[in-house]
Amino acid sequence: MVTHTLILLRHGASDWTCKNLFNGWVDTKLSDKGREDAIKAGKLMLEHNLLPDVVYTSCLSRAIQTANILLEVVDRLSVNVRHSWRLNERHYGALQGQNRKEVAQEYGQEKYMLWRRSYDVAPPPIDDDCEFSPVHDARYSGLPNDTIPRTESLKDVEARLVPYFNDVIGKDIKHGKVVLVIAHSNSLRALVKHIDSIDDQDIVDVNIPNAMPLIYELNDDLRPVKSGYYLDPETAAEAAEVVANQGN
Amino acid sequence: MVTHTLILLRHGASDWTCKNLFNGWVDTKLSDKGREDAIKAGKLMLEHNLLPDVVYTSCLSRAIQTANILLEVVDRLSVNVRHSWRLNERHYGALQGQNRKEVAQEYGQEKYMLWRRSYDVAPPPIDDDCEFSPVHDARYSGLPNDTIPRTESLKDVEARLVPYFNDVIGKDIKHGKVVLVIAHSNSLRALVKHIDSIDDQDIVDVNIPNAMPLIYELNDDLRPVKSGYYLDPETAAEAAEVVANQGN
Repeated sequence: MVTHTLILLRHGASDWTCKNLFNGWVDTKLSDKGREDAIKAGKLMLEHNLLPDVVYTSCLSRAIQTANILLEVVDRLSVNVRHSWRLNERHYGALQGQNRKEVAQEYGQEKYMLWRRSYDVAPPPIDDDCEFSPVHDARYSGLPNDTIPRTESLKDVEARLVPYFNDVIGKDIKHGKVVLVIAHSNSLRALVKHIDSIDDQDIVDVNIPNAMPLIYELNDDLRPVKSGYYLDPETAAEAAEVVANQGN
Repeated sequence: MVTHTLILLRHGASDWTCKNLFNGWVDTKLSDKGREDAIKAGKLMLEHNLLPDVVYTSCLSRAIQTANILLEVVDRLSVNVRHSWRLNERHYGALQGQNRKEVAQEYGQEKYMLWRRSYDVAPPPIDDDCEFSPVHDARYSGLPNDTIPRTESLKDVEARLVPYFNDVIGKDIKHGKVVLVIAHSNSLRALVKHIDSIDDQDIVDVNIPNAMPLIYELNDDLRPVKSGYYLDPETAAEAAEVVANQGN
């Protein structure tokens, strides 16, 4: 049986990671640590001879910066890098720009965890007048106004992402290309939920750490022939624990 | 009359620029100076509010690195960057990797200038066994073997580049996109020759400096409504003079 390699990678730490702010579609940049994260991820892929033939990223700078740095490390700058808003982080609605800890204190731990990790509960929508609203961002000007989200649940992310994975990314995978997807905490959770057929309830416990290559071997139906694995499982498990406890 | 904006940019200085080696299709990287060059070019474009909607580069790292750095400076990382071998530097044949001054001394100034600046004289071809031959480079593995050049004159570059400019890049220009082309000394000379309808004899005197944005305003037939101009004409003229005298 022919198997295909898919590599998932969350971007490196951003300006807002250390400030513990809800990021979502706000276009923050990599911090110095985030650049180091991307270099490390590239070196790890190089060590394991896992070299991408094509890269898919979101439209957000922190994912694209991660791609550019990583491709320089693995000396594959000439591979195509394709951007799509369908790989964007979950839109965090009115929470974007707010401090995680403060939100948890103001609304209580239960609501906070519902907004962060539940499958189908979306935070309150962002107002179009807000500086962080995506309607002001030129990169989404080609989208119909009612397609641009003002808030999203993980279910909403899955609904906009899975067709793109099946129809566009999946085509490259089936053609035998080693595909690297560089995206975000919740867009990758949605993708992992889909690939691994994880229950709506169980996805609450899945946390994706920054810049840790997560490898899938898929068959022609884009189903895993074995479970996805991190190249550096120990460090990834520790980092996932940190993500799980953000705002606690 | 509607006019369209095309920005041409030669990559920043590479590892080999300061060593004065013939570069061609050898995939050298930007030097620290080259990275600074790219940042300066981005800042200059930002000052003049000349922001690309799409970027075309060669398949060579030094052009793609220049694109990535520049897009970070102008905060447009999410625009598409398309690579094509048709924008590659002229293939310098057997001269690739050789020192310009030594070639001039060995073969004489006349032959040296013929190889460097004449329109239709190509250097001796590179041997397929040579480490610098493009037949060993995975990025060209999709091309028919007899399409991969072993040496090129400027005329050869024009022949492989102009159809791509007219059919692919030109389509974006006509759609009103601000197009940035990041390429190389001789692929840009071929493009300027085509756009400005420069004579085969006169192109010998045209030198393109590193990382100086060169602006064209084109009509719907992709013809200039006025002469191309550098954003920083004084510095560009000095830098072009240095390029003209390389190896003398």
